[in-house]
Amino acid sequence: MKNRDFLENKKRILQKLENAKNNGEVDSGIIPVLDLINSMDDYYTSSSCFGRIVLMEIPVIGDKKNARWLGKWHHKINSGDVLSAAKDAKRGQLWLLAQCPIIHVVCKDVESADKLLKLSVSCGFKHSGLKSFDRNIIVEVLSTERLDAPVGRDGRFFCDDEYLGLLVDVANDVVSKSSEKLSRFKDSLDKLLNN
Amino acid sequence: MKNRDFLENKKRILQKLENAKNNGEVDSGIIPVLDLINSMDDYYTSSSCFGRIVLMEIPVIGDKKNARWLGKWHHKINSGDVLSAAKDAKRGQLWLLAQCPIIHVVCKDVESADKLLKLSVSCGFKHSGLKSFDRNIIVEVLSTERLDAPVGRDGRFFCDDEYLGLLVDVANDVVSKSSEKLSRFKDSLDKLLNN
Repeated sequence: MKNRDFLENKKRILQKLENAKNNGEVDSGIIPVLDLINSMDDYYTSSSCFGRIVLMEIPVIGDKKNARWLGKWHHKINSGDVLSAAKDAKRGQLWLLAQCPIIHVVCKDVESADKLLKLSVSCGFKHSGLKSFDRNIIVEVLSTERLDAPVGRDGRFFCDDEYLGLLVDVANDVVSKSSEKLSRFKDSLDKLLNN
Repeated sequence: MKNRDFLENKKRILQKLENAKNNGEVDSGIIPVLDLINSMDDYYTSSSCFGRIVLMEIPVIGDKKNARWLGKWHHKINSGDVLSAAKDAKRGQLWLLAQCPIIHVVCKDVESADKLLKLSVSCGFKHSGLKSFDRNIIVEVLSTERLDAPVGRDGRFFCDDEYLGLLVDVANDVVSKSSEKLSRFKDSLDKLLNN
């Protein structure tokens, strides 16, 4: 019965994922990994993000509810991208963020969750963990690289060209590392599937 | 038998914690929370950090192995603290970090882990998760606020006074929020203990 629930939910969620893919709402860089996970009997993905670079304005730290998004990129950027997006800054703290990939995977049972968690950590996703284990057993696959830098306040941008260059280099490094780790994760999943 | 293992390990680890406390190796701000958790039958703490502000030098992002620590503070700071620590910068990326509290709690069983995880999330520790569930069931209590900002390269410090002021404000905000959340967590644990 529990297994039937898992399979029914998997079917339903994967149909939603197909629709989201068709509408271009899923980050293309992460689709091969999602497809591979979803091809395995014991798992399905419930949400994901490839990782991104974000310029946003918030009243104070942590107040994401009232964030205004000025720029969002799923690829490497240059200083001009940031400067151009920063022109819309008005009030509050201006932050440049680079976030690594995140994938939520529903697992059939505790054993399959354990296997996936160990695999994730071994591929460098060292902040991975089990987020829920009552109705759904959910593993969050998450890495450690990130940039969380305030870069301005109340419409003023604080970085000179050289410093902005450093921030952009670091943000782009997060994007590169993300791709590398996802690719390593995909290879390891492939091996798991073929064993 | 499993319960006996749990109790024996708890006794051993708490003895280590007492020694560490006596040697001043445990962040004092977090001790009341640790003591409360350790007074509960179903839990014991295996490691913790109150949160901190750090100035460090790394060759490239993620290479924590080769990090050089130039400054570490468990309290609010001012710009002078950072400038003074930054004088020792030589090579590679210079980062200013502010990290929120982290506590690893070993749980007696899956039910007690579930209870603690839900309590942690409800107190604002939204990045909490189960990190291990084979031999030891370990919940990581972790919040979301943080600052991860590169502030210089190869011995040069990139922030002017106004920008450094913003970074210090944000780092100090992380310290304040950490204290608030720990205090809320302690109150909720108190209620759990008395119910």
